Amino acid sequence: MKITKDYDLLRNALHQRRQKLASLIDFPAILWSGSSIARNYPALKLPFRASSHFLYFAGLPLENAAIRLESGKLELFLDDAPSSSTLWHGEMPKRAEIAELIGADAVFPMAELKSRGMGAATIAIQDNLTAVQQSQILVRPLAPSKSPTGIDLELTHAVVSLRLSHDAASLVELRQAAAVTIAAHKAGMAATRKAQIEAGIRAAMESAIISENMTCAYPSIVTVHGEVLHSEHYYHSLQRGDLLLADVGAETSMGWAADVTRTWPVSGKFSLTQKAIYDVVLAAHDACIDKISPGVEYQNIHLLAARIMASGLVDLGILRGNVEDLVAMDAHALFFVHGIGHLIGLDVHDMEDLGDLAGYEAGRVRSSRFGLGFLRLNRVLRSGMLVSIEPGFYQVPAILNNPETRAKYKDSVKWDELEKFADVRGIRIEDDILVTEGGREVLTEKLPTKTPEIEELVGVNT
Amino acid sequence: MKITKDYDLLRNALHQRRQKLASLIDFPAILWSGSSIARNYPALKLPFRASSHFLYFAGLPLENAAIRLESGKLELFLDDAPSSSTLWHGEMPKRAEIAELIGADAVFPMAELKSRGMGAATIAIQDNLTAVQQSQILVRPLAPSKSPTGIDLELTHAVVSLRLSHDAASLVELRQAAAVTIAAHKAGMAATRKAQIEAGIRAAMESAIISENMTCAYPSIVTVHGEVLHSEHYYHSLQRGDLLLADVGAETSMGWAADVTRTWPVSGKFSLTQKAIYDVVLAAHDACIDKISPGVEYQNIHLLAARIMASGLVDLGILRGNVEDLVAMDAHALFFVHGIGHLIGLDVHDMEDLGDLAGYEAGRVRSSRFGLGFLRLNRVLRSGMLVSIEPGFYQVPAILNNPETRAKYKDSVKWDELEKFADVRGIRIEDDILVTEGGREVLTEKLPTKTPEIEELVGVNT
Repeated sequence: MKITKDYDLLRNALHQRRQKLASLIDFPAILWSGSSIARNYPALKLPFRASSHFLYFAGLPLENAAIRLESGKLELFLDDAPSSSTLWHGEMPKRAEIAELIGADAVFPMAELKSRGMGAATIAIQDNLTAVQQSQILVRPLAPSKSPTGIDLELTHAVVSLRLSHDAASLVELRQAAAVTIAAHKAGMAATRKAQIEAGIRAAMESAIISENMTCAYPSIVTVHGEVLHSEHYYHSLQRGDLLLADVGAETSMGWAADVTRTWPVSGKFSLTQKAIYDVVLAAHDACIDKISPGVEYQNIHLLAARIMASGLVDLGILRGNVEDLVAMDAHALFFVHGIGHLIGLDVHDMEDLGDLAGYEAGRVRSSRFGLGFLRLNRVLRSGMLVSIEPGFYQVPAILNNPETRAKYKDSVKWDELEKFADVRGIRIEDDILVTEGGREVLTEKLPTKTPEIEELVGVNT
Repeated sequence: MKITKDYDLLRNALHQRRQKLASLIDFPAILWSGSSIARNYPALKLPFRASSHFLYFAGLPLENAAIRLESGKLELFLDDAPSSSTLWHGEMPKRAEIAELIGADAVFPMAELKSRGMGAATIAIQDNLTAVQQSQILVRPLAPSKSPTGIDLELTHAVVSLRLSHDAASLVELRQAAAVTIAAHKAGMAATRKAQIEAGIRAAMESAIISENMTCAYPSIVTVHGEVLHSEHYYHSLQRGDLLLADVGAETSMGWAADVTRTWPVSGKFSLTQKAIYDVVLAAHDACIDKISPGVEYQNIHLLAARIMASGLVDLGILRGNVEDLVAMDAHALFFVHGIGHLIGLDVHDMEDLGDLAGYEAGRVRSSRFGLGFLRLNRVLRSGMLVSIEPGFYQVPAILNNPETRAKYKDSVKWDELEKFADVRGIRIEDDILVTEGGREVLTEKLPTKTPEIEELVGVNT
C-alpha cells in the first residue's frame, strides 16, 4: 500500500467506528482480512481483495491479518514479511508502522491470536482457507456469513447498522470512486467510434480506472447484448444499429466502490425506437432519484419505477391496460426484470455476503413475486446510505418467448408492436445516490444521461 | 467462451495430446478445471482461471468441469447451466455441444464422475475447494502438486513430457499472446510522455491486452523501482531521470501466455550511465538467445549471461578481477539476482505448480549457490520448448548495503565507481524464444531492444 498518504482522516474514522461498535456489543470481535489465492501456481496469485468488514475497521488491505475489537480498542495481528521477500517485493512497512498508521492500540504477530479467540464473535469470510483458521482460533464451527447465529449474529447486526450509513472518511473514498467511474464511462463513449468489438470499449473504460491506480469493483459488463444482465463476454463485433450497455465501476485502493451504467448507440445516434424506450427508462431513473429522501421506503421507489415503466410502455403501445393493474400482474417485469437498485459501499452490492441481513429490514423477506423478488434493498432510507438507482428495459428471449408468458400476458402485451422495437435488446441507466439530511446527492451526476448529451460524447460514427 | 471460432485445429491437437498421453501411461487420469472463487460475496467472484493441465487436454476454460482420459479416449463431465441462469448469463452452450466442440468421446453430468474415480491418477489443483472434491472422487488423500506420489507422479511425468514441447495448436496461441504483448509494450512506451505515475503506463499496456479480449498472464510489473523484482505498486510518480521497467504479458482466452520485459527512460533519452549498463544487459540477452538450440544445456546459457554481465561490469569499472573468478564467487549475482529464464506455456512459469518436476531434469536439484539457486529451468533444450531469456541488472539495497556482502566483495566490487550508476536501479530485457529444429525463433522479436529504437518509440519527453 501507499504509505505517503495523509492518514489522519482514516485514523479518526476507524476510531469512531470502533467506538460505535462498542456501544452496540459487549463482547470482543475478531475480523480477518483473508489471504490471496493461487491462480496458476503458488507464486502466481489472483488479485488479493481484503474482506470488506476487515477493511471497514482496519482501513488498509493487509493480507493475512486480523483485528480484535473490544470496548473500542483495536488490536492488530500481522506477521512482518520475512527479510527474504525484500528482493521480490521490496521493503515492506513493519507491523508496528502499520499499527501506527491505523491507530491500533496494540499489535502482535499472528501466532498470538490463538490465545485471544475465547468468547469472540466474527463474520465468516469468503475465502475458505481463512474460514478454516477462523474456526480454529475461535474453537467452534462457523455458520456461513449469510446465516450467523448467537454472538456472530449480534455482531453482524451491529456491523450492518454501522456500515449502512457512510461517514466522512468513506464518503471521500466513494466520491473518488464515482469520479473515476465517470471518467471511465466518458472514455468508453469516446472510444466507441474506433472500436471493432466490445473489448475495445471495455479496454478504454478499464484503462481510465487502472490509470488512477484503482481496480474494477466488479466484472465489467460492456456488451451489445444488454439483455444478458451479467454478460462477461467482450468478443461481439459492434454493429452500427447496436446499443452498447456498459456497467463499469471503479474501486479505490481502500476498497470503496462505484456502480454506474450507461447505454449508448454504437453509431452515435439513437434510432427513434431506441430513443423512445431510453426516454421511458430515463423518466423512471429521474423520478426515482427525485424520490430519494430519509424516511422513504426503498421498495416504494422500486414500485414507482415499475409504474413509470408500465405507463411509458403503454404510451409506446407495447403494453395495454391500466398501469396499476399491469404492475400488479408484473407486466412491467417482463422488461424491467430486476430490482431498482441496492446498497453501495465497500462492496458494490454492499454487504451481500450477509445475504439479506443488510439489504432487508429485520422481519422482511424477499417477495415471491417475479416483479419484486429480485429487489436487493428493502429498507427505510436513512441519511448516509448510498444506493444505486438503475431502471432498465430488456428483451430477454428466455422470458419473452416462453409460451407460458405469452399465454399469461396475451392481453397485456401487444406482441406485434413489440417487434418494432427489435433494435432495443437492453437499456439500463444507473447512478449512485447518497441519501442526505435534506434529500439526496447524486455522486455520479456529472455523467450525462440525456440522449443529446450522450450522442455528443459518443460522436457521430460515420 | 466464444464458440464461433474454428475448432478443427484444437480438436485435432487435443486428440493427438491424449494419444501421446496414452502411450506413456496405462491407467486412467482425471483432470479438474477448478471453480471460481468469491471475491466480496458469492455472486461477485474473482476472475476464473481453469487449471492449465485441464486446459491442455480439454482446450476450453470450462468452470466446474472434469475430464477423464483413458487409452486415448476423452470423457467430459460438466453440468448444464440451470435455466434460471439464462437471465443473468445468457444462453450457455449445452454440455453436448461443448463435447462436440472439443471432440469428447462421451459426456456426462458431474454427478457421474464419482463412479469413475477408481484407479485414476490426477494432478492436485490450486483451488482448495476443488482439491477436496478431487480427494472425494478418488477416495484417497492427495499430495500437493509439487510432490505427487505413485500413479499421480507417473501422470505428472507424462504430462510434463508432453507440455515441454509445444504443438502447432499451442504455437498459434503462443504467437497471438506474443503479438498482443508486443503491442502492449509499444503502447506503454508511447504513453510514457503523458503519464504522471506508473499506473498511467500500466493502463495503456493492459488496455492493449484487454482490447484484444485477452487477460494479463501475471500481475504486471510497471515500475520506476525495477530493483523490486515483483513490484506490484503503481503509484510512484515518474521523474525525468527514471528508468521505467515494464514486465507485462498477455494470455489468450485459451490460457496461453507471453512474458516480456522492456526498460525505457521516462525522459525518452537514456543517460550515459543507463545506456552503459543497458548495453551490458543487452549483450547478455543477445548472446544467450544466439546460444539457444536443441541439445544445449539451459544452465550453460545462464552461466554465459553471468560471464557477459561480469565482463561488462569489469569493463565499466564496477567489478574488478578475472571474469571466471568473479562468476565463481557469484559477484555477477550481486546485480543479476535471478535466473536467466524459465519455461513458458499455459503458465507464464510453465508448470511451476509442479515445483521443479517440469523445470529440472530428473535427478537435478536447485543449487544452493546464490548465483544459481534462482534458476527455474535446468534442462537440455529440445525442439518445441518455449523459454524466456531475461538478463537483468539491479541495485537492491538489501543486498548491496548488507555489511556481510560489502565485506565479502570488498576486493571485487568498486563501490565508489558503482555510485556513479545510481540512476540505474533496475534493468531487465526479456524475450520469448521457441527452440526449433534449426535453432531458435524469437516470438517477440518485433519489439525493439536497442536503445535508439526504444528511444524513438518513447519519444523525447520535453
